[in-house]
Amino acid sequence: MPPFVHTENHLTSSAMLQDIVIGLSDGLTVPFALAAGLSGAVQSSGLVITAGLAEIVAGSIAMGLGGYLAGRTEVDHYAAEVAREHEEVRTVPDVERREVQELLANMGLSAVTAAKATDELTQDPEQWVKFMMKYELGLEEPDSKQAPKSAATIAGAYAVGGLIPLSAYFFTATPSEGLLWSGVITLVCLLVFGYFKSRLTGQAPVAGAIKMAATGAAAAGAAYFVAHLVNSAGH
Amino acid sequence: MPPFVHTENHLTSSAMLQDIVIGLSDGLTVPFALAAGLSGAVQSSGLVITAGLAEIVAGSIAMGLGGYLAGRTEVDHYAAEVAREHEEVRTVPDVERREVQELLANMGLSAVTAAKATDELTQDPEQWVKFMMKYELGLEEPDSKQAPKSAATIAGAYAVGGLIPLSAYFFTATPSEGLLWSGVITLVCLLVFGYFKSRLTGQAPVAGAIKMAATGAAAAGAAYFVAHLVNSAGH
Repeated sequence: MPPFVHTENHLTSSAMLQDIVIGLSDGLTVPFALAAGLSGAVQSSGLVITAGLAEIVAGSIAMGLGGYLAGRTEVDHYAAEVAREHEEVRTVPDVERREVQELLANMGLSAVTAAKATDELTQDPEQWVKFMMKYELGLEEPDSKQAPKSAATIAGAYAVGGLIPLSAYFFTATPSEGLLWSGVITLVCLLVFGYFKSRLTGQAPVAGAIKMAATGAAAAGAAYFVAHLVNSAGH
Repeated sequence: MPPFVHTENHLTSSAMLQDIVIGLSDGLTVPFALAAGLSGAVQSSGLVITAGLAEIVAGSIAMGLGGYLAGRTEVDHYAAEVAREHEEVRTVPDVERREVQELLANMGLSAVTAAKATDELTQDPEQWVKFMMKYELGLEEPDSKQAPKSAATIAGAYAVGGLIPLSAYFFTATPSEGLLWSGVITLVCLLVFGYFKSRLTGQAPVAGAIKMAATGAAAAGAAYFVAHLVNSAGH
C-alpha cells in the first residue's frame, strides 16, 4: 500500500515541522529579549549568559514537559469520550439516533434522506461511535506515540532557537557589544524563519518575515526598557 | 433571542478562560524557574528581580503578540479557503460533487443515499461551501474580534502568573531566602491552578495538580542546576 505509507510519512514530518516551528518561534524570541533586557542593566556578559542559559533550560522544560502532558491528556480525553459514546449508544440509542439525524439535517439533508442516512450510519456501533466522535464532538483520534516525540522536538527547537541569540555574548567582551551582535544575528534569523514559516503555512512570506522580526524586536525593546528602569531605580 | 445570547456569552467566557489557562501555565512556570536558577548563581535579589521582570515583559509580549498574529493569520487563512472553495464549486462542480459524495460514503452511507444526500447538499452554493469547509477541511469560522482580546488576555495572565513567584524576592533579603518563599508560594499556586484547570477540562483534578507542580519543580530544579554550573565554571 505505497500511497498509504506515503501519507503517513507526510503526516509525521508535518507534525514534526509544526513542533519545530512552535519551539523556534518562542526560542528565538524570549531568550533573545531577556538577554537584551539584561544587557541594559548589568556590566557582566557572564551574568547575561547565566540568566540566558537558565531561561533556555526553564523554557525548554516548561514547553516540552507541558506539551507532553497536554498530549497525554488529549489521548486520555479521547479514550474517555469514546467509552462514553459507546455507553450512550448502548443505553440510550434513541437519543443518540436523534442526535445523528439532527446533525445530518443541519448539514443540509432533507428529513427523508437524513432519516435514511441515520438508519445506515447506526447499523454498526463502531461506525456510529466513530461518526459521533468526529462530526458531533469534532475529535480526531490522537496518536499516543506523538506526545513524547512532540515534547522532545519542541524542547530541542526552543533550546536551539535560544542558543542563537545567546551565542553572541560568548564571543564579545561587554554586554552592550553582545547585544549589538545578538540583535543582528537574531533579527536575520527571525526574518529567515518568518519567511519559511509563512511559506509552509501558505501565508505571504515577506509580511510573515517582517511580523516575526517585529515581534522579537518589540519583546527585546520592552525588556531592555524595563530592566534599565528597574536597575536605575535600584541604584 | 435569549438562548442565542446565552450561548454567545458562554463561548466568549470559555475562550477567555482558555487564554487565561494558557498564560498562567507558562507564566507561573518559566519566570519562577528563571528566578530560581539565578538564585543559585547570584548574590543580589535586585538582579533576580531585574532578570525576572525582563523575562515577564519578554514572555508576555512574545506570547501576546505571537497569539495576536496567529489569530489574524487564522482569520486570513479561513477567508482564503472560503474563496478557493467558492471558486472550485463554480469552476469544477463535478470534482467537488464527487468529493462530497466520497466524504458521505466514508461516513458510512450507502452509495444510493450518499448520491441522494450529495444532490441535496449541493443545491445551494453557500451551504455546499459551508459543508466543505467544516467537514472536508475541518475548519470552523474564526471570530475576527477574538485575536486582540486573546492576545491581551494571554499576555495579562502570563504577567500575573510571573509576578507571583517573583514577588517573594521583593520582600526577602537574599536570593536564597527569596527562592525558599518563591518555591512555597509558587508550588501552592501550581497545585491550586492545576486542580482547577483539570476540573475545567474534565480531567482528574488531583493528578492534574501534581503534574502541574511537578512541571514547575522540574523546570526550576534544572534551571538552578545549570545556572549554578555555569557560574561555578565562570569563577
